[in-house]
Amino acid sequence: MAKEETTAITPTRAEDYAEWYQQIIRAADLAESSPVRGCMVIKPWGYTLWENIQREMDAMFKATGHRNAYFPLFIPKSFLEKEAEHVQGFAKECAVVTHYRLIQDEKGELVVDPEARLEEPLIVRPTSETIIGEMFAKWVQSYRDLPLLINQWCNVVRWELRTRMFLRTAEFLWQEGHTAHETAEEAMEETRKMLDVYRDFSEDYLAVPVIRGRKTESERFPGADETFTIEAMMQDRKALQAGTSHFLGQNFAKASGIKFQSQAGTEEYAWTTSWGTSTRMIGGVIMTHSDDNGFVVPPRVAPAHVVVLPILRDDSRQKVLDYVAEIAAELRRTFYGNRPVEVEVDSRDIRGGQKKWDWVKKGIPIRLEIGPRDVDSGVVSFARRDQAVNQTQAVPRAELAATVARVLEEIQAGLLAKAKEFRAQHMRPIGDWNEFTGFFTAKNADKPEIHGGFAVSPWCGSADCETKVKEQLKVTIRCIPLDEVPDGGFDRCVVCGGEKKETAIFAKNY
Amino acid sequence: MAKEETTAITPTRAEDYAEWYQQIIRAADLAESSPVRGCMVIKPWGYTLWENIQREMDAMFKATGHRNAYFPLFIPKSFLEKEAEHVQGFAKECAVVTHYRLIQDEKGELVVDPEARLEEPLIVRPTSETIIGEMFAKWVQSYRDLPLLINQWCNVVRWELRTRMFLRTAEFLWQEGHTAHETAEEAMEETRKMLDVYRDFSEDYLAVPVIRGRKTESERFPGADETFTIEAMMQDRKALQAGTSHFLGQNFAKASGIKFQSQAGTEEYAWTTSWGTSTRMIGGVIMTHSDDNGFVVPPRVAPAHVVVLPILRDDSRQKVLDYVAEIAAELRRTFYGNRPVEVEVDSRDIRGGQKKWDWVKKGIPIRLEIGPRDVDSGVVSFARRDQAVNQTQAVPRAELAATVARVLEEIQAGLLAKAKEFRAQHMRPIGDWNEFTGFFTAKNADKPEIHGGFAVSPWCGSADCETKVKEQLKVTIRCIPLDEVPDGGFDRCVVCGGEKKETAIFAKNY
Repeated sequence: MAKEETTAITPTRAEDYAEWYQQIIRAADLAESSPVRGCMVIKPWGYTLWENIQREMDAMFKATGHRNAYFPLFIPKSFLEKEAEHVQGFAKECAVVTHYRLIQDEKGELVVDPEARLEEPLIVRPTSETIIGEMFAKWVQSYRDLPLLINQWCNVVRWELRTRMFLRTAEFLWQEGHTAHETAEEAMEETRKMLDVYRDFSEDYLAVPVIRGRKTESERFPGADETFTIEAMMQDRKALQAGTSHFLGQNFAKASGIKFQSQAGTEEYAWTTSWGTSTRMIGGVIMTHSDDNGFVVPPRVAPAHVVVLPILRDDSRQKVLDYVAEIAAELRRTFYGNRPVEVEVDSRDIRGGQKKWDWVKKGIPIRLEIGPRDVDSGVVSFARRDQAVNQTQAVPRAELAATVARVLEEIQAGLLAKAKEFRAQHMRPIGDWNEFTGFFTAKNADKPEIHGGFAVSPWCGSADCETKVKEQLKVTIRCIPLDEVPDGGFDRCVVCGGEKKETAIFAKNY
Repeated sequence: MAKEETTAITPTRAEDYAEWYQQIIRAADLAESSPVRGCMVIKPWGYTLWENIQREMDAMFKATGHRNAYFPLFIPKSFLEKEAEHVQGFAKECAVVTHYRLIQDEKGELVVDPEARLEEPLIVRPTSETIIGEMFAKWVQSYRDLPLLINQWCNVVRWELRTRMFLRTAEFLWQEGHTAHETAEEAMEETRKMLDVYRDFSEDYLAVPVIRGRKTESERFPGADETFTIEAMMQDRKALQAGTSHFLGQNFAKASGIKFQSQAGTEEYAWTTSWGTSTRMIGGVIMTHSDDNGFVVPPRVAPAHVVVLPILRDDSRQKVLDYVAEIAAELRRTFYGNRPVEVEVDSRDIRGGQKKWDWVKKGIPIRLEIGPRDVDSGVVSFARRDQAVNQTQAVPRAELAATVARVLEEIQAGLLAKAKEFRAQHMRPIGDWNEFTGFFTAKNADKPEIHGGFAVSPWCGSADCETKVKEQLKVTIRCIPLDEVPDGGFDRCVVCGGEKKETAIFAKNY
């Protein structure tokens, strides 16, 4: 197959999606793997994106009454054991601290000091329900202490065997909300409210459309009564679970002893929730928006909005630099969303073509090129990341700030619309088993990853049918959707033909 | 001794300073100890203070050209070993991960799985020079890649035996800057520049006056060529090291292989720096400003600025609440420093006296009490944390926003002035050994912590004299000051009478 045009990223999405993903991360300088197994280094361009995500989500958490706190990195083994399902879920993949000192042996080598063995091993937190529950049990005495609405931004560790940058790493950064309530109803309301916050954040900031839904029993968080999720479709049509919100019932309250005196004077266990999103969202942003020329990032969370590329020649160098400095200062006084426009100026002495492509690959939403002629005619050469690389227009300087603000908003809205359109094209109701298997079978044996996308299909509710689909097709039930999806009105389970209990979204997933 | 008036905190500073400190933390609800040895839980009031510190320092780091990134929590043992002094400094107090799985034994008990032993133990980072150095070695190839200016906000672990909330905990939160440069001069300039950023932050935001200085060899960071420090005086006259900035020479560049091609075409090792501050600063804020009624916190970093306490009676409840809501909204539109005024409204149904004292203990800079009569006369009862608890004034509503902004600035300036005055009273030049020992000897055997403060004294430069002072008096050289201090013009070492080489600040310390 002859390529129609040269692209900056090799391979392209169509050629090898998984490798394309790694190359985007490298080309945009977002992150790289570290010498520590399964742990990544998040580089400044990727970390600034994370800071923007944090700042905006944090404001949403605070606006809904939550406050941040910080709890210990280590969880005593006995705490993890308190909730039976929870420990089953996390014991198999955790980092265990057993000693607190290194010492030189007779040969002068540094070894773990056998004398410094901990009486009780400490687990590096994979999630903090048990340690936070222990503290909540102290803080909650009366119904007056409820609701207790806490969030934590921190690192967690899960000893994953197969890792992939941002999507699945041994250590990752996340936020975990933990709340306690008087009644089951209030706790469920909180669970759903935070799911909606995640949906809003994903769509309004990341421009990643998601379907809200309920997880089946087999996919629930270990120890939860119900798990809710937001599921997004990537460009290879696989699903990405981008955030989860758990109704924990009284399970952790009983395990940790979170009890309170009710308004009626009785002693009751609290009802708790937890909810989390992580640096995995960055993987979702990359795979939703990027193209064969590099990273594409929604302006609202972009590490920077505008790069100015001066065209420097000996005879006009200072003139151009002065004009560039004025423009950068003016743009930095302009607001986009909740923050000033972030401007980079790239004055490196390298070829203009390389400079331009560096920034295309980094996904900067707007590129401004400014040479001596632009200075003379009072214009700026303006290019946007959501259009062809060589498509530029001359914008009069007086209109620049307004144009930047408007175009950023256009790019943001355009990315969401495009992702919604893509999802609509690759999600469809399927009621027939043969059609279902065909949908999830690669059209081309060379490219096993290309399949239909999301199937909205009737399900009888049995774990057997769920298992059959998983084993035969590597397809799972992503969720029982809460949002409206085209369901085809079928009434028999797509797998066994039994009576339909739910309409489910089936997909391959990350 | 009869008390002159009742105070909210028992014991008072004079009665038992160390216990007073713990009681301030409890009364202000800043933090508490956790069931994990040496690890604390930072509660919302304390964590918000940390968020404010982070936001303001982060802006200063970015304004000086640094970018944030994130590196792995774990450091392979072999990395720690690369720098000989460094490993000596940290091996004795580190958390070691040796296994990656728990499993049930024959009795059904959860145990460390002996099959899941790591080939190489991983150290939970006590600081990140070695892992960051490894990455820098990949990122730096040419002089064009320099300077490399990186900062990381994260948690670190040092297995301290004796811990104290905020001041010394096994896990703590901090920032660590790491930079690489072409020349020794540039690296030294960076080291000093970041020391100045720390000094400015400490004085301008925390209202904690500090003395900048150079550490003696025995007090240097393990692996550094020079360590600079900012030292503050607490109210018990002990010193607190509030931040350090290290010139690392080429030690870590050689250990990690950070090499670059110079402008002259030769291969050179880079010159590196690192610098850090931590949640320890919160301990410094507490001990500098708080009094016998509770926490006192400078407005620029305060978790909130104003609390409104409505006086609610059945017949005027709604009228008062409406007035309070209007006032809170108006104040939230007012700016103080870089952020809107943060307002809390405490409508709890508890006694007014208890409510007032709760907020005095939490250190809120301004308290507004509003009852039905205030509504009728269009005033607000205004009290400030830096004046007597019962001293209030009636402020007309039209003047409230301006008064709040002005008083916050007055409180901020007043706290710094008061702390400077306290330090001036308890720092003095001493050239005579008898006077020196007297200065550091408790006047009253009952209160061993009460001593003179900071002695500015001549020192011959010998480690022997340093050791003698440490062993006999538990006094150390805090720094060789870079700032002007009253030095008395002595020319013989205060300890041995030998020729003076440096003027040093001697103090007891945290």
